[in-house]
Amino acid sequence: MNDRIQTLRNRMAGQNIQGMIIANPVNVKYLTGIDAEGIFLITRKENIYITDGRYIEYVNSVLTPFDDIIVDNYRNISKDEYENFFMFCENVGFEENYVTYEKYKEYMYKYKIHNFVESESLISTIRSIKDKQEIENIKKACNVTDKCFEFLLKYIKPGMTEKQIARRIDDFYNENADGISFDTIVASGENSSKPHFLPTDRKIQKRDIITIDMGCKVNGYCSDMTRTIFLGEPTEMQKKVYDLVLKNQNSVLEKIREGTNIKILVQEVISDFKLYGYDLIHGLGHGVGMEIHEKPFFNPVNDSFLKENMIITDEPGIYIAGNFGIRIEDTILVTKEGASVLTESNKECIII
Amino acid sequence: MNDRIQTLRNRMAGQNIQGMIIANPVNVKYLTGIDAEGIFLITRKENIYITDGRYIEYVNSVLTPFDDIIVDNYRNISKDEYENFFMFCENVGFEENYVTYEKYKEYMYKYKIHNFVESESLISTIRSIKDKQEIENIKKACNVTDKCFEFLLKYIKPGMTEKQIARRIDDFYNENADGISFDTIVASGENSSKPHFLPTDRKIQKRDIITIDMGCKVNGYCSDMTRTIFLGEPTEMQKKVYDLVLKNQNSVLEKIREGTNIKILVQEVISDFKLYGYDLIHGLGHGVGMEIHEKPFFNPVNDSFLKENMIITDEPGIYIAGNFGIRIEDTILVTKEGASVLTESNKECIII
Repeated sequence: MNDRIQTLRNRMAGQNIQGMIIANPVNVKYLTGIDAEGIFLITRKENIYITDGRYIEYVNSVLTPFDDIIVDNYRNISKDEYENFFMFCENVGFEENYVTYEKYKEYMYKYKIHNFVESESLISTIRSIKDKQEIENIKKACNVTDKCFEFLLKYIKPGMTEKQIARRIDDFYNENADGISFDTIVASGENSSKPHFLPTDRKIQKRDIITIDMGCKVNGYCSDMTRTIFLGEPTEMQKKVYDLVLKNQNSVLEKIREGTNIKILVQEVISDFKLYGYDLIHGLGHGVGMEIHEKPFFNPVNDSFLKENMIITDEPGIYIAGNFGIRIEDTILVTKEGASVLTESNKECIII
Repeated sequence: MNDRIQTLRNRMAGQNIQGMIIANPVNVKYLTGIDAEGIFLITRKENIYITDGRYIEYVNSVLTPFDDIIVDNYRNISKDEYENFFMFCENVGFEENYVTYEKYKEYMYKYKIHNFVESESLISTIRSIKDKQEIENIKKACNVTDKCFEFLLKYIKPGMTEKQIARRIDDFYNENADGISFDTIVASGENSSKPHFLPTDRKIQKRDIITIDMGCKVNGYCSDMTRTIFLGEPTEMQKKVYDLVLKNQNSVLEKIREGTNIKILVQEVISDFKLYGYDLIHGLGHGVGMEIHEKPFFNPVNDSFLKENMIITDEPGIYIAGNFGIRIEDTILVTKEGASVLTESNKECIII
């Protein structure tokens, strides 16, 4: 059996969970390497992947005997067989944040499950700690992102539209990585005050502020970086807000290490922003891996602690409605001693 | 109040549903025009959109007084106010195929809902019938797709990789439309036997078969088309399978009109394939609109009927494991008299 499935089985045993239905394709891929539509069952004795005719050939080409996974076409499974999978399980775990209410009911009925247990965190907790290969992939993705930003600083000129710049970023990622890890954000001028705004046909002008939030994928792993740059000298107010955001981004960086409490990190930024009359209107950061947003989530009520080999973002931002916004974000590897910043692009106020 | 919300309220009244929580962003966009993260509540007397600080400015810029929607920041809503929204509703509808088990529990608790009713189909049924503007957008998207295919016939040459061709398609869609409507499929040679395979670094060779499944978006609406082409003369067997797929694709087309039963359409293709020893291993088609896959779904148990102004696909395919596959797909407008085919690219066996 592969290591990841074995780890999950150990965690399940620790919580006395006897079976599990894994439906989220990202979790299935993490555990099995299979990137298809299907469902992965962990029963008392077997690991079973159920899919349809479109994927059988592909799935068999991905798995090795070492994976110890039985592959089945759902068309060949009878009603009785479905009911037998979890027959001797006192309880069965499922992904409560992925499975819809409709599917939940369907599973209960189809597999005859009487004691369904919310156990998504078993897998997301394992996934939040990255292994060597995963760290390597994310480092590569961050490296391509830095190179893309370097390229952009020479590329961006007044008269270009936000969309044009965003597409150039996407092209860069297609050429140098496996494409984007989320919809690229290029928000200029007053658009920058809307923190998650998709690129428009607005043309970049002299004296614009531009927020660029971008990331790519390498071997299925994401990078995530934001920089806010200026076309010409920023105003007095922009400069002050930029310095406040950067100060907080750096002070969070200094506190990141194994054992840091997430809630306290977030509350400190909220307090410092408040001193100057600003609010932190989105999460301070999030885990990055196969998904662009994954565990841990940096919010003021998350009372958990950072662990070695988590990969996370640090992205404070301030937005002044109808005027401008500033966000600065890095992707960071948590180590025992501190933060190892994987996105290395210049964060000082850049004027192009 | 806008027409779409009014229509939904009428359908709700018809089924005596007194409130509704709409969380699926596609449904929210359809009903309100808002493309953000938030939740849309239909209470007995009001329409309320709840979002967070990142989107308030944008949302207010999208809505007009005519929409009759109250916008609120979730931070300003107290526990009591949440409980009051549906206080006088005997039941509240929700999207059972979108809302996760976790969210379902959260809503029950937060809004104090005792009688939650599965009512997603209320909205998806309205969405399955397209209005004039929606049809116009999908026609445009299909037109760009035809142009892209015309371009490809001249562009594709032996030595190119599947990925390279897929990227060229994506670029074409970025230049001439609002990007892709799903991950472009370019499956060549033996890869074509896997019906939903993502492009690889495999190089196109002489005598290859290539399946291309592609679509773009125009103003938020999708197109979807598949063609299977040949680099050089197909084999005797490929020719036979191609003709069988095309014959079925055309016979379905001839039967499409208001009132046609979906189940019977699908079963006829299954039977004809069986005569020659083949299976239909995926759905025969699906609705197309704001989403690439939406109601109605063409499977052998869907006992519903086609209606005027539905937009659907017709996409039979045959796949011979390890060898080759053939799929032919059009996007089609259902009219009272028959099928109006919106993707007009040549379907005869094309040899380039």
